[in-house]
Amino acid sequence: MNPILSALPTTVFEVMSQLARETGAVNLGQGFPDDPGPLDVRRKAAEAVVDGWNQYPPMMGLPELREAAAKHYKHWQGLDLDPNSEIMVTSGATEAIAGALMALITPGDEVVLFEPMYDAYLPLVRRAGGIPKFVTLTPPHFGLTEEALARAFSPKTKVVLFNNPLNPTATIFGKADLDLLADFCVRHDAIAICDEVWEHVVFDGHRHASVLGRPDMRERTVKISSAGKIFSLTGWKVGLVMAAPAIMRVLSKAHQFLTFTTPPNLQAAVAFGLGKEDGYYEGMRADFQRSRDRFAAGLRDLGFAVLPSAGTYFLNVDIAPLGESDDVDFCRRLVTENGVAAIPVSAFYAEGAVKNVVRFCFAKRDATLDAALERLAARR
Amino acid sequence: MNPILSALPTTVFEVMSQLARETGAVNLGQGFPDDPGPLDVRRKAAEAVVDGWNQYPPMMGLPELREAAAKHYKHWQGLDLDPNSEIMVTSGATEAIAGALMALITPGDEVVLFEPMYDAYLPLVRRAGGIPKFVTLTPPHFGLTEEALARAFSPKTKVVLFNNPLNPTATIFGKADLDLLADFCVRHDAIAICDEVWEHVVFDGHRHASVLGRPDMRERTVKISSAGKIFSLTGWKVGLVMAAPAIMRVLSKAHQFLTFTTPPNLQAAVAFGLGKEDGYYEGMRADFQRSRDRFAAGLRDLGFAVLPSAGTYFLNVDIAPLGESDDVDFCRRLVTENGVAAIPVSAFYAEGAVKNVVRFCFAKRDATLDAALERLAARR
Ligand SMILES: CSCCC(=O)C(=O)O
Ligand SMILES: CSCCC(=O)C(=O)O
Repeated sequence: MNPILSALPTTVFEVMSQLARETGAVNLGQGFPDDPGPLDVRRKAAEAVVDGWNQYPPMMGLPELREAAAKHYKHWQGLDLDPNSEIMVTSGATEAIAGALMALITPGDEVVLFEPMYDAYLPLVRRAGGIPKFVTLTPPHFGLTEEALARAFSPKTKVVLFNNPLNPTATIFGKADLDLLADFCVRHDAIAICDEVWEHVVFDGHRHASVLGRPDMRERTVKISSAGKIFSLTGWKVGLVMAAPAIMRVLSKAHQFLTFTTPPNLQAAVAFGLGKEDGYYEGMRADFQRSRDRFAAGLRDLGFAVLPSAGTYFLNVDIAPLGESDDVDFCRRLVTENGVAAIPVSAFYAEGAVKNVVRFCFAKRDATLDAALERLAARR
Repeated sequence: MNPILSALPTTVFEVMSQLARETGAVNLGQGFPDDPGPLDVRRKAAEAVVDGWNQYPPMMGLPELREAAAKHYKHWQGLDLDPNSEIMVTSGATEAIAGALMALITPGDEVVLFEPMYDAYLPLVRRAGGIPKFVTLTPPHFGLTEEALARAFSPKTKVVLFNNPLNPTATIFGKADLDLLADFCVRHDAIAICDEVWEHVVFDGHRHASVLGRPDMRERTVKISSAGKIFSLTGWKVGLVMAAPAIMRVLSKAHQFLTFTTPPNLQAAVAFGLGKEDGYYEGMRADFQRSRDRFAAGLRDLGFAVLPSAGTYFLNVDIAPLGESDDVDFCRRLVTENGVAAIPVSAFYAEGAVKNVVRFCFAKRDATLDAALERLAARR
């Protein structure tokens, strides 16, 4: 058995959701919305499953979905993408990340990662044979510094993998951060794998700028997104990968032997969805922002130290002022004794974990958030 | 970029289907049926997508699907499987194979493969760090021999990966073959990854026996199947993996970071489908067998040397009697000049390729098969 995989624990998101299912806890752990997703998009999928094509679609994805994605990203992020050579559909963003790492890493290559990081990143880098080099981001901005990047990059750096907006910190890298990162990538001839699944879930009027849109990064960026987050349909597992043709050719070789294709019925529905007017995306953001504000206010009323959230479905709470110093233990008690599932942020670290931050998902109906607040209020 | 992946060609199935789309050829290449799949199963998926859960399902798969799979395999193959610890749902059989190899191979381990073999196997073994050891199977039985296995197995053998029924030969390993293979696995403490996706597509009254059902292999077998083949819905990409708990624990660690989950709506429909009466499976086999016989007769009438087909969607033709000695060139001419796409069987070999066999998919409506025969008749 492979020691990297056999030593892994079950992902914290699954553990917490499982515990929530077993205990009947309000699940603010794993990031998924209460909202069932747009009915017209789901109806389109239902139509396609009954009247449409249910056999293998083209390996790169339905042409209509790749064309819809090209239009979507032109409109929202000013990207000029050729749907025939620069866009690929995968079975979710996780497959896209796994495939990109398998395609771009040769055993012994160094990969720069930023902590806190999504828990899939490190095992995937290591299983692909990459040597991880960590940059630890620090509160409150979780931004990049020249010194930290200089320590992490080396002549062996081949790939930088990062998430923007950043889960779990709910921060967004600013222009100065991205300038610095691009400089390092160009100087070291490294490829950036940008997990931008949260690109549409940004607040307070922010507009997401993709690293792929930077002329200096156009030929050295893999942009990854997901219909799951664009349409609040996290179970659909329809991912989008964008990259210049020379990179895409190799990414497609990983995809063809990881899942080969993605259900054509769901792809057709996502293609339809991407044609939605601006109002849809703006409405989604406004709804999530209202939930964020409502839940933050509720937490503050209960005496929690709430950290800012500029994007993602998440709000973090500093538990140190509560006299708590172990986020894992805190979350364990929260779910078993108080009936609220949350995520200990230490799960996002490989080394030097912060132990005083707990993440809550606020992408929920008012009633769900209120039920959680009530249970938190009853905490002893 | 990774040299194993960057050196790969696009899979022959995609290349041929792409050519067929472009030229309007009758596509008997890539294996998928004309039949749109059972309407009641597709309606179930439509219902689930509109009224059901569209967020992350449990990582191991919907409990109802794992329970349905346990019942299904108890009934059809006499397997006793615990749905909670021995069954996992993946995003297709391809993900299941990729994940099993990543989970079970440590770089340097030897992996026994049988040629001809499905084209995904070798790149996946190599990317996982495995050292391939080939056993070449030979016509007409494509069976195993003690000598060939003795040459391939060594103290470093950790995994044997094979397909039964076997695509592209359309043969089935007999009891003597499996006894021999089991002996070698037990003696070398190796795990068998059994790609049994064609288990239900068997003819002439055959009943598939899974390697997982052998007491001597129960703790050292990974059984892989797929709803795509069980229900003629190849685009759905709902795979099933079965293994003893000690193996499954590690397989699940690969799955959690390859795709994490599979669309819950399609899973719910597959769970429903697995509840079908025996008549469904028997009818499917009878239909495919009728198509096989019709197409084989048509080919023979045209002077083709047709090889036997005991299972899978495929019929092979020996092109040597036609004075042809290059299957790739033959298939290229067939699709561009005659408008029929087929698969050159040399694509299934890493070394010592047979060059005189061409594979046709017969899982098609009579009209499709007749159109192909007409075009083949017009061949010059
Ligand atoms: C794949 S389960 C985790 C979902 C998610 O993005 C999160 O909760 O961080
Ligand atoms: C994944 S495309 C190939 C489908 C198939 O099983 C075949 O044609 O052999």
